[in-house]
Amino acid sequence: MQQPWSLSSSSSSGPHGDILGPDLPDIWTPIATPPPLPPLNQDSSTKLTPTIIDGKSIAEEIRAGISEEVRQMKDAIKKVPGLAVVLVGQRMDSKNYVEYKTKACQEVGIESLLAEFSEDCPEEDIVNAVTELNRDPSVHGILVQLPLPKHMDEERILSAVSVEKDVDGFHPSNVGNLAVRGREPLFVPCAAKACIELLIRSGVELRGSNVAVVGRSKVVGLPTSLLLQRHHATVSNVHAFTRNPGDITCQADIVISAAGVPNLVRRSWLKRGSIVIDFGTNRVEDTDSELGYCVTGDVCYEEALQVVSAITPVPGGAGPVTIAMLLSNTLESAKRTYGFN
Amino acid sequence: MQQPWSLSSSSSSGPHGDILGPDLPDIWTPIATPPPLPPLNQDSSTKLTPTIIDGKSIAEEIRAGISEEVRQMKDAIKKVPGLAVVLVGQRMDSKNYVEYKTKACQEVGIESLLAEFSEDCPEEDIVNAVTELNRDPSVHGILVQLPLPKHMDEERILSAVSVEKDVDGFHPSNVGNLAVRGREPLFVPCAAKACIELLIRSGVELRGSNVAVVGRSKVVGLPTSLLLQRHHATVSNVHAFTRNPGDITCQADIVISAAGVPNLVRRSWLKRGSIVIDFGTNRVEDTDSELGYCVTGDVCYEEALQVVSAITPVPGGAGPVTIAMLLSNTLESAKRTYGFN
Repeated sequence: MQQPWSLSSSSSSGPHGDILGPDLPDIWTPIATPPPLPPLNQDSSTKLTPTIIDGKSIAEEIRAGISEEVRQMKDAIKKVPGLAVVLVGQRMDSKNYVEYKTKACQEVGIESLLAEFSEDCPEEDIVNAVTELNRDPSVHGILVQLPLPKHMDEERILSAVSVEKDVDGFHPSNVGNLAVRGREPLFVPCAAKACIELLIRSGVELRGSNVAVVGRSKVVGLPTSLLLQRHHATVSNVHAFTRNPGDITCQADIVISAAGVPNLVRRSWLKRGSIVIDFGTNRVEDTDSELGYCVTGDVCYEEALQVVSAITPVPGGAGPVTIAMLLSNTLESAKRTYGFN
Repeated sequence: MQQPWSLSSSSSSGPHGDILGPDLPDIWTPIATPPPLPPLNQDSSTKLTPTIIDGKSIAEEIRAGISEEVRQMKDAIKKVPGLAVVLVGQRMDSKNYVEYKTKACQEVGIESLLAEFSEDCPEEDIVNAVTELNRDPSVHGILVQLPLPKHMDEERILSAVSVEKDVDGFHPSNVGNLAVRGREPLFVPCAAKACIELLIRSGVELRGSNVAVVGRSKVVGLPTSLLLQRHHATVSNVHAFTRNPGDITCQADIVISAAGVPNLVRRSWLKRGSIVIDFGTNRVEDTDSELGYCVTGDVCYEEALQVVSAITPVPGGAGPVTIAMLLSNTLESAKRTYGFN
């Protein structure tokens, strides 16, 4: 029983007890086939012609720049950036991601190194491998491909990555220095950087804009929301516990979605003329496709096209730019290590 | 000129360039005497009787609990918690705050130690003093009273405080571990803890509630918004660059204000039945008062009373609970140091 004088926090176990809130998973209700919406009442004079933000070609431009910088570094100091990727288990999607990433490294001249582990290997082996990579002077970035197998302690493994090689930007001090204006993290998470890059390159004014961020993972939602605030946007965070999320998103000038739920963002969630960045990468069954599935975002794309002024497609939108940012973070890390500008 | 392939970030100076956004101050337009609002059209049957959240007595209860724990610690291990306060310069408000804090320590049996410096002392002296305090085993918490004189590097001085004695919760890894669900910071900033404590003790359901946080300082707005999200509230952050902030706050079930601007939050900003926590502590000229000024919050209190269901007054609301949380953080730190439960 709680004593009358005790802190609310004293009633539960941890050192902070209730104060930190219960750690609940975000469980959205997925909609396999969304019910059709009535046709939009608009004549041709008010019809929008939305810009499809071409993430693929933006990523190409960024990679070309990185490639050039890597070449200059190699010419000048005979060094190239190195990225180590830690992959545990046999998940097909993880293997595919890792393949994209290492291929992207290769294309720009970044050395990549793959440390593979079986799903049932001792956690200790992975921690030891990360510790080794921390000491390896040819490695400037270490990426642990998520999700890890469920029985593993993700936080323990991630926390083995040194803050100087934390190209994913998950280290507590990198997150904390991103959150506080005036401070400088060593790394900004790739998705957050990609989001800002996509918006700035599309000519979007962030300062004073109203942004809804759907999803709050440490990979996308959280850092993107923190970074948007540093650009003086007004940010609302929508998650699985949000009541009537559409009421919030439909007032936003910009909607960022990273919930991992296909068809979550309907036309009714979007304000006319808004801009949508879709980080969703969801596999949806598709009997017409050779693979038996197709990849879609979180946004009902065809519906969104009826109201938005600009949108990233999936695939070919936020994904390739996020991978380009991983290369950019690895390059920055190598430049910092060698004092090369 | 930006090259076609460069990152947006490459066009400016720092390692992250534009990506982190420009560091702009939050400048609100203060309203000395707000224009009167028309009387609210409500008959007696719909009239709300708002709860005045009694921060003073909540703080007293919390302090009584801390006092008891300090006594138990002293009895059991002959040790008491110790708080060091670093005060630089002669600001009257800072001196007053420090006095409240050290007096509050004394009342619960926490040892306090004041390290005072003149405004023109070398920054190095303060950093050295903090480093000494980090090593002092009788000190479990170190607080640098803000604001520091303008010519000093606040971040440099704050970063000298060891993460284990960071009772204000400003250390990058404490902020980062607060931001990421599932992680545990060593300290949660006092104001954020106070806010949750005030709401929980007032029987407010946080999960799924719509919260607007006005202001985004590292002292109040930022950590409060992060902590509310850990309690699964839907949080919107309003700041000086927000267009039509009232449009956001008036949809919130809970409004937290920490902008430092008297009369900022008008009746029109508040939804009927909402709950208001006011962290504003603003000195306003008052010729009727002996001191020549009175202290008000950010909220037009009399106006708010017409629509809210609960509100903290200023003074006597969030302030005393925030100070109680400083004692709580210092006690937790001492318990951690001595392994005392």
